[in-house]
Amino acid sequence: MSATLERALGLRSLLLLAPLVAALTTNALAQTHESTATHADPVAPVVLALAIILAAAKLGGHVAGLIGQPAVLGELVAGVALGSADLAGVGWFQAIERDQTVDILARLGVLILLFEVGLESTVRDMLRVGLPSLLVAILGVAAPFALGWGASALLLPDRSVYVHAFLGATLTATSVGITARVLQDLGRSQSPEARVILGAAVIDDVLGLVILAVVGGIIAAANRGDSLSYAEVGLVLGKAVAFLFGALALGVTLSPTVFGVASRLSGRGVLLATALVFCFALAYLASIIGLAPIVGAYAAGLILEDVHFRDFVNRGEQQLEDLVHPISAFLVPVFFVIMGMRVDLAAFGRMDVLGLATLLTVAAIIGKQACSVGVFGQKLDRLSIGIGMVPRGEVGLIFANIGLGLTVAGQRVIDEGIFSAVVIMVIVTTMATPPALKWSLARAARQPDA
Amino acid sequence: MSATLERALGLRSLLLLAPLVAALTTNALAQTHESTATHADPVAPVVLALAIILAAAKLGGHVAGLIGQPAVLGELVAGVALGSADLAGVGWFQAIERDQTVDILARLGVLILLFEVGLESTVRDMLRVGLPSLLVAILGVAAPFALGWGASALLLPDRSVYVHAFLGATLTATSVGITARVLQDLGRSQSPEARVILGAAVIDDVLGLVILAVVGGIIAAANRGDSLSYAEVGLVLGKAVAFLFGALALGVTLSPTVFGVASRLSGRGVLLATALVFCFALAYLASIIGLAPIVGAYAAGLILEDVHFRDFVNRGEQQLEDLVHPISAFLVPVFFVIMGMRVDLAAFGRMDVLGLATLLTVAAIIGKQACSVGVFGQKLDRLSIGIGMVPRGEVGLIFANIGLGLTVAGQRVIDEGIFSAVVIMVIVTTMATPPALKWSLARAARQPDA
Repeated sequence: MSATLERALGLRSLLLLAPLVAALTTNALAQTHESTATHADPVAPVVLALAIILAAAKLGGHVAGLIGQPAVLGELVAGVALGSADLAGVGWFQAIERDQTVDILARLGVLILLFEVGLESTVRDMLRVGLPSLLVAILGVAAPFALGWGASALLLPDRSVYVHAFLGATLTATSVGITARVLQDLGRSQSPEARVILGAAVIDDVLGLVILAVVGGIIAAANRGDSLSYAEVGLVLGKAVAFLFGALALGVTLSPTVFGVASRLSGRGVLLATALVFCFALAYLASIIGLAPIVGAYAAGLILEDVHFRDFVNRGEQQLEDLVHPISAFLVPVFFVIMGMRVDLAAFGRMDVLGLATLLTVAAIIGKQACSVGVFGQKLDRLSIGIGMVPRGEVGLIFANIGLGLTVAGQRVIDEGIFSAVVIMVIVTTMATPPALKWSLARAARQPDA
Repeated sequence: MSATLERALGLRSLLLLAPLVAALTTNALAQTHESTATHADPVAPVVLALAIILAAAKLGGHVAGLIGQPAVLGELVAGVALGSADLAGVGWFQAIERDQTVDILARLGVLILLFEVGLESTVRDMLRVGLPSLLVAILGVAAPFALGWGASALLLPDRSVYVHAFLGATLTATSVGITARVLQDLGRSQSPEARVILGAAVIDDVLGLVILAVVGGIIAAANRGDSLSYAEVGLVLGKAVAFLFGALALGVTLSPTVFGVASRLSGRGVLLATALVFCFALAYLASIIGLAPIVGAYAAGLILEDVHFRDFVNRGEQQLEDLVHPISAFLVPVFFVIMGMRVDLAAFGRMDVLGLATLLTVAAIIGKQACSVGVFGQKLDRLSIGIGMVPRGEVGLIFANIGLGLTVAGQRVIDEGIFSAVVIMVIVTTMATPPALKWSLARAARQPDA
């Protein structure tokens, strides 16, 4: 009976496909001739954009995996390909890049990513990593900042000091996600080097976000016509530090109570909803204090610990990480593909962009080798730690993206050319790390007393 | 050492909270005096709205659970409360209701919900339920449609025939989600009555969506100034049926191949991404053919079966339902809370609204009792089947929401008053079902040969 029905369905499909295909073709043709949207439901163009973005992201991630690279690289390149389709005469994808809702979904994606990355560490982990990680982190922030500033001053002498500071800041933060993923793929995530690298990368992120807040605040003040005053710098720095430590202290104090109360709420999905409310509320608090919303999302992730959810897991809910992961799998690729679409491929032909990209990449790689100076008194492979700190992933792109939206005296701080140079730096540092780290860890293993 | 650090953090929190609280208060006060947004990041108002919506949804769901009602009811009522805050002088929440991105997120939410509901059944399930479910479904659609039309013609004699048809259509579709959830809660989801109810509810949804497509198409034609021609009705009906069967046939034929190819892609999250691309693509196809995007999402859910994902699950990915659930837990409450916010509480004071709501509710309940006529030749409890078909949940609200956006000759088909009457009908049928079904199943169990 069932087989008969299936066969009947198979036969019917041939008959039914004809009008379907005809209707689809007619509608598609009709739409290309009409400039006004014929969709009654405004969700239609958004779901089309999401379908294209997710398909491109997964294909790109697969190709990246084939050549031994992290998936994020493939998503970026897929975005570059979609965004550059207009060079080949297909201008249609430009609509996706300009869609406001897709832009907000991408921004929600990066919030969820930083929240997820924050969930991987706890506030106690950060306090516990101690002196080596802190020294490694500070050196790994100061050296790239200075080198990036220098590279910008050298190649862009006409630009203001704000551009130099912003490019320096863009080089500071190590990508926790990429570093952790590479160490995991190599089965080395529990090695002493891995602990120092991951601890320093976490501190790096926080320092980078503080620097971003300070530089961004200075630029915003300059744009209002105020001069660069020490009081202003102090205020921005104070606000950033107060928010981070205040949010962490408040969160650590309050979150057990909040989740304790929430765990008494009945209904499915309470754990996920409470965690998202916590993340979104801290992101909003960060934004009203003048920080990037991602700072709040990251702080929310750091604050939340498994122990807060014991009551939920005991009653049969999944772990929070498992619940957040599908949301990040849905929204995070939107961010990276849209980032890739914003890369101006035509700018790659300009010698100044390639020159800046080369110098920024060299500054990014050499700068992080300063980290190895901070490793002392322990039998650790310094070269591996320096290489492990090299990848600049999402945070560098986020900085560059924020720079696209900042203006001083009517001029954008980061223009398409500079943005493309930053993206090239991110792509090269991200691509170079997996093979380089694999090589240096293997070398260290052969010389256990080096 | 760790304890010392924690104590230090505790002490520090007191010192650090002061500037944080001061800064937050100052910023919040400053913002209420500035009409222009001070957020550099456009995601900030969206995350604030999402935090409020999710918190309200979960509190509402909890309260609903306390009084033995499904969570969806609590989410609706929470939305009504937020939306009515302006009556109490707090007009601030109106910004959430008007936010375009939140509206799109709500629409994505209902897409994901229908996709999820579709995943619970397969195309084969639908073909297998056979004659009793089909008869029950057709009677359960025809009777409420006729009674709804009659109620509308009786109480709204001045309105056009389109309003009557639309209100009739709004009464047709049983809420699969609520029915299934109630049967599950009562531990009766494997009973013969449950199979007939669920099978009929699935067919109901499809019939309801076809009716919506036909009525919506007729109204759109009338709005363009065309008269109501039989050819037009035939075309809309043909397109709807062709899409549903064409998409189902095409999907059943192609999806094993699509997922077979996708399962060869490396990288995390490929299963979820492929399923979402499938859902979004069918939703978009439905919209370009003139159907509601949810029809495509539901068809996508029906088509996808566990067997397509065997390769993914074998390599360690979670089941698709587990991956989709967190996304629906995030986005679906946005839909119901926003629906609730659109309820005009002031309209409840109008006698015509209450009269229409009462008559629609009676039509909805009595109409579904016609289902029991379709149950014959089997030892089934007819009353329980009739009661099980009563709840009108998301689909009725979706219809009403679509009606808010349809106009004929410049006048909206569904105005705030009629919308509020539909929402009252949904609330009453949803609330009445759990206790009534519990009672009737217990009664039948006491009389096994009834």
